[in-house]
Amino acid sequence: MHSDNEGASQAIRVILVGGSGYTGFEVIRWLARHDGAELVGVFGPKDELGPMEAFYPHLAKMCALSQELFEPDRLADLHADLALLCVPHKVAMSYVPALLGANLRVIDWSADYRLRDPAVYETWYCPHTDTGHLDEAVYGLPEYYAEAIRTARLVANPGCYPTCAALPLAPVIRAGLVEPTGIVVNAISGVSGAGRKPAPKFHFPERNENFEPYGVGTHRHMPEMEQVLGDLTGRDVELLFQPHLCPMDRGMLCTIYARPTRDVTTDELTACLEAAYAPAPFVRVRTDVLPATKYVTYTNFCDVAARAAKGRAVLFGALDNLLKGATTQALQNMNLMFGFDETAGLY
Amino acid sequence: MHSDNEGASQAIRVILVGGSGYTGFEVIRWLARHDGAELVGVFGPKDELGPMEAFYPHLAKMCALSQELFEPDRLADLHADLALLCVPHKVAMSYVPALLGANLRVIDWSADYRLRDPAVYETWYCPHTDTGHLDEAVYGLPEYYAEAIRTARLVANPGCYPTCAALPLAPVIRAGLVEPTGIVVNAISGVSGAGRKPAPKFHFPERNENFEPYGVGTHRHMPEMEQVLGDLTGRDVELLFQPHLCPMDRGMLCTIYARPTRDVTTDELTACLEAAYAPAPFVRVRTDVLPATKYVTYTNFCDVAARAAKGRAVLFGALDNLLKGATTQALQNMNLMFGFDETAGLY
Amino acid sequence: MHSDNEGASQAIRVILVGGSGYTGFEVIRWLARHDGAELVGVFGPKDELGPMEAFYPHLAKMCALSQELFEPDRLADLHADLALLCVPHKVAMSYVPALLGANLRVIDWSADYRLRDPAVYETWYCPHTDTGHLDEAVYGLPEYYAEAIRTARLVANPGCYPTCAALPLAPVIRAGLVEPTGIVVNAISGVSGAGRKPAPKFHFPERNENFEPYGVGTHRHMPEMEQVLGDLTGRDVELLFQPHLCPMDRGMLCTIYARPTRDVTTDELTACLEAAYAPAPFVRVRTDVLPATKYVTYTNFCDVAARAAKGRAVLFGALDNLLKGATTQALQNMNLMFGFDETAGLY
Amino acid sequence: MHSDNEGASQAIRVILVGGSGYTGFEVIRWLARHDGAELVGVFGPKDELGPMEAFYPHLAKMCALSQELFEPDRLADLHADLALLCVPHKVAMSYVPALLGANLRVIDWSADYRLRDPAVYETWYCPHTDTGHLDEAVYGLPEYYAEAIRTARLVANPGCYPTCAALPLAPVIRAGLVEPTGIVVNAISGVSGAGRKPAPKFHFPERNENFEPYGVGTHRHMPEMEQVLGDLTGRDVELLFQPHLCPMDRGMLCTIYARPTRDVTTDELTACLEAAYAPAPFVRVRTDVLPATKYVTYTNFCDVAARAAKGRAVLFGALDNLLKGATTQALQNMNLMFGFDETAGLY
Repeated sequence: MHSDNEGASQAIRVILVGGSGYTGFEVIRWLARHDGAELVGVFGPKDELGPMEAFYPHLAKMCALSQELFEPDRLADLHADLALLCVPHKVAMSYVPALLGANLRVIDWSADYRLRDPAVYETWYCPHTDTGHLDEAVYGLPEYYAEAIRTARLVANPGCYPTCAALPLAPVIRAGLVEPTGIVVNAISGVSGAGRKPAPKFHFPERNENFEPYGVGTHRHMPEMEQVLGDLTGRDVELLFQPHLCPMDRGMLCTIYARPTRDVTTDELTACLEAAYAPAPFVRVRTDVLPATKYVTYTNFCDVAARAAKGRAVLFGALDNLLKGATTQALQNMNLMFGFDETAGLY
Repeated sequence: MHSDNEGASQAIRVILVGGSGYTGFEVIRWLARHDGAELVGVFGPKDELGPMEAFYPHLAKMCALSQELFEPDRLADLHADLALLCVPHKVAMSYVPALLGANLRVIDWSADYRLRDPAVYETWYCPHTDTGHLDEAVYGLPEYYAEAIRTARLVANPGCYPTCAALPLAPVIRAGLVEPTGIVVNAISGVSGAGRKPAPKFHFPERNENFEPYGVGTHRHMPEMEQVLGDLTGRDVELLFQPHLCPMDRGMLCTIYARPTRDVTTDELTACLEAAYAPAPFVRVRTDVLPATKYVTYTNFCDVAARAAKGRAVLFGALDNLLKGATTQALQNMNLMFGFDETAGLY
Repeated sequence: MHSDNEGASQAIRVILVGGSGYTGFEVIRWLARHDGAELVGVFGPKDELGPMEAFYPHLAKMCALSQELFEPDRLADLHADLALLCVPHKVAMSYVPALLGANLRVIDWSADYRLRDPAVYETWYCPHTDTGHLDEAVYGLPEYYAEAIRTARLVANPGCYPTCAALPLAPVIRAGLVEPTGIVVNAISGVSGAGRKPAPKFHFPERNENFEPYGVGTHRHMPEMEQVLGDLTGRDVELLFQPHLCPMDRGMLCTIYARPTRDVTTDELTACLEAAYAPAPFVRVRTDVLPATKYVTYTNFCDVAARAAKGRAVLFGALDNLLKGATTQALQNMNLMFGFDETAGLY
Repeated sequence: MHSDNEGASQAIRVILVGGSGYTGFEVIRWLARHDGAELVGVFGPKDELGPMEAFYPHLAKMCALSQELFEPDRLADLHADLALLCVPHKVAMSYVPALLGANLRVIDWSADYRLRDPAVYETWYCPHTDTGHLDEAVYGLPEYYAEAIRTARLVANPGCYPTCAALPLAPVIRAGLVEPTGIVVNAISGVSGAGRKPAPKFHFPERNENFEPYGVGTHRHMPEMEQVLGDLTGRDVELLFQPHLCPMDRGMLCTIYARPTRDVTTDELTACLEAAYAPAPFVRVRTDVLPATKYVTYTNFCDVAARAAKGRAVLFGALDNLLKGATTQALQNMNLMFGFDETAGLY
């Protein structure tokens, strides 16, 4: 961590739980750019302990921390203000009660607190063991929930696909320009989205130069998309989400097909997006060029666009699945929660 | 060309017009594997002449031919049976009359003879200068037009995207399982589909690790898809086609969303495809795995699949844009035209 | 396998042992293009049995064979002429005695019969269990050992790196243009060279966009290079071999640094290579362009070149690690062994 | 530029000349992370003017500057402290006199002030038009010239390959562990190193999945390497440099072969590197893993390593060609020149 942080007496103290995955790695990289937050500890399970640079040689001479065993009863000693949870679903909800109990604020990368209705969660994931904190959790999409995020104790950081789909869709459904049902979200993701564990499907010679659909009708981000879009628009949103694996490290792009409620033009759709996102520092409405993943990878930006074509509305969203789709979106939430400039450390 | 061909007294004599592009290169590579066809000449425009291995160092010690100036009045000397036209639209129709007049049969890779209605052609391309041969041209999709192809003088080889979309869609529309309108064809292509001419959009550092949509509502393969699907199903087919560039050399995948006419299952949709393609040597219906580009690249196969999901039918097609989407599909047509086994030289 | 083969009454009968790895897959793809050889069986270990298309969906409608348990005592029933062994070292030598005993000829992809001296083999690999056949094994580099290969019962197919290094080096050492010692072979390989088993190092997000050296001074192809070059030149060859992983599917390139014995020119070095390889159908000497992997991938060609620069000789070799570096080189050997044209089925 | 900078009254004022190339883009991205430097103007040639986000859609909502025509006589109005020159060689030396004359300090990315001897420059580049400032220019390798850089008016930012080769080589030559002559520097670079102008060699389908050597004995970074290593070691250094293009966006790796002066071990070589770079914030000596490009891309780190193997010393260097090989190395120099922490804004 760079020295500026150490000297900043008012820097908040942050712990990271789950440093060995790709999103945890990005936490370390990006917090090193943030003047107001100091990473004071990294924690993980007992079979993944040791110096962070042993997991990520990228971090040598940049992060001297070791991943230590997460022991909830030692939390008080850390005097930490914020816990960042980069752990899988199910694990997250087993840690949250202790963290909140120790007076830490929490941002959770997992799905455990994203779905308001435990029955929906349990249909798509597993039994929920901390339903008591579901109501309190704020869905961490800063473009829409900034007020609630500022004071939240527990932020459920959105999924990558739901962020990428909700940002282009929410304004045009809300404005009544397109029907809230019968929507198709066709999406692609870079392979880092699948995590760090080797498997035949992600073996380089199988994945490279290969484009492949997966999870037809079964991806767990589908109900999350419907929930967040329903919340944002006050409509019953129904959509089909179809993801694909694209042979690149990172980047996500949604191509969304919706039925206009009337004869809309590209200009009307675009104006609707521009009105929604003019004040948003990290959402850009594209007109001259279409969104492409390379404009957003390695950044916290989400690019959106809308076009009318052959009687449909075609919407696009693009972001970096590990950043605006995960880690830097979480840090944007952190900025709101602790009164930093929303963009601090995020360029 | 390898020596076996030279010795085969009954081999047909083939000329290639347009050897310097990617599809022309594939003609040379694949004809070298065909016992019944001998490439006797390669022709091009006056600024692209010379040994084929100067254009493609890949061809050294494999093809000794030079690209020579195409002069229609010298065609008779070649005693050729077949002309393969790997030239751009507009150029193709300027050559076809002379080739047919010299009693060659012709397979044309361009769009010039694909659209039956010259008005449609002229809306999407340019003025048509050989409308007299439009009626005679046979659309070269061997799975459906084998009979007509066998005796055709002029075969309009289908576009890559139309092949990839029509093969999965035709059977299910024809069987009345999905509506012929309101279809969305979301497609991706490897970059070789854009041809061999450098441009900023295809500069390696701009294209690599980048996924990008293009041509919203404006791609010229859209009317071709509607025409061929209309012809194959007897319905008025209406669809929106949305292509994307995927950072890989080759491979194409269509993800197609259609509305079922009734409550259909994955099994019904799959059975419909299997019935249609059981006898087709190069179309494979996928059940256990979904189509992926790597199963079909460097081959003449098209893989198709169908799934019912959330009230839609989701169909997939995958092929190699330069092969089943262009050159080997043309050679499959050649096999039919000259009485070879349909699979000759195509594995 | 395609129908032409089945009809060819004089086709040789071939069995493949080890169909589930990448080189075994290429055997199936390329034998489908060969008129004179019929694949009559595929065999593997008991935990990898079943239809070939279950291992490789690429093979659906192309290869109906199943990988069956390899049982040496049932070999006689197969009436096979040739066994192709795409199995790891150690396994190969456990099968060879039975195969030869059943009067099959054998081509072995592994290292088990490449190193003449069992002590050298045992230093770099493991104890040798079939030293009795070492003397009989012919090193399958067709450009140099064609005569012996024609009558060989057992061919040790060369390693990919040794082929790629020996082809450019042998002529210039033999001609006395460069010193046989102090040579550096700097090499890169596509990732398919590492095989099909997933591991962190080959996980797509770790390997993609990543170039990395490995095995400094410890790669087992180093003694094989020294042996074959010693054999071919009659000199004691000493070299340092340094491989690297390159983020691409396939392709191998050696950049070789040698000390000239006197003041040599690029022209002299090139003339030496050209004299050596003029009659070789699959080795091409590059002058106007340098070897690059894309000129040779998906082919059986090896491209070589030589340049004099700053008092050194810089030599290049390029090939496809799965083809001229493995499977099609083996089929080139098969062509010689069974009296086919050397190029049959290899374009 | 983000708002924090605007408020920092003591921020230095920086102008960028040449914003439309890849290194200029990185200047904008990285200065946005620097609290002490404000970018106040971007300048370019008359055919490349306009909003930076028109050149780089990545910069929308991040950089509101436009590239304006560079007019030396208006420099005074800018009250700038520092000019960053991301322009080609020859152009740089046409601007430097006016910039220095206007009391700006200058960091030049081009080769124009790197080679001390104008005769050497003119052999490899073109006539030199500003020899008067050659003596004053400081070679901007901060690990060795920090003192001189701190007070320099004109810094010649090193080439990417020379940085990558000099960092591993300098300590071991200086320590007398390897001979200063007969060195081979075998290097690979990602394609962004070739710049932003499209050309057949960099067309995606030609470059992707392709590894290729170039410039045998003729690359202009070779004399720069010899000069800097000679300066750093007091020896006459002679080496052969051989670059290759690797199919990835960015990243550079040198594999260097040198002759030990005596029987050295890996431990001795490593200890020598560690002693040299213990205090260097951006040079890391690798022991357990070898350098790989992915550990350093998107960072200012250079990773180095040394191994003894078969009587040679094998050294490795790896960096990001656009960052430690260009832009962030320049900003590291800027940090020294203006008294910032050496690492400020560079994580």
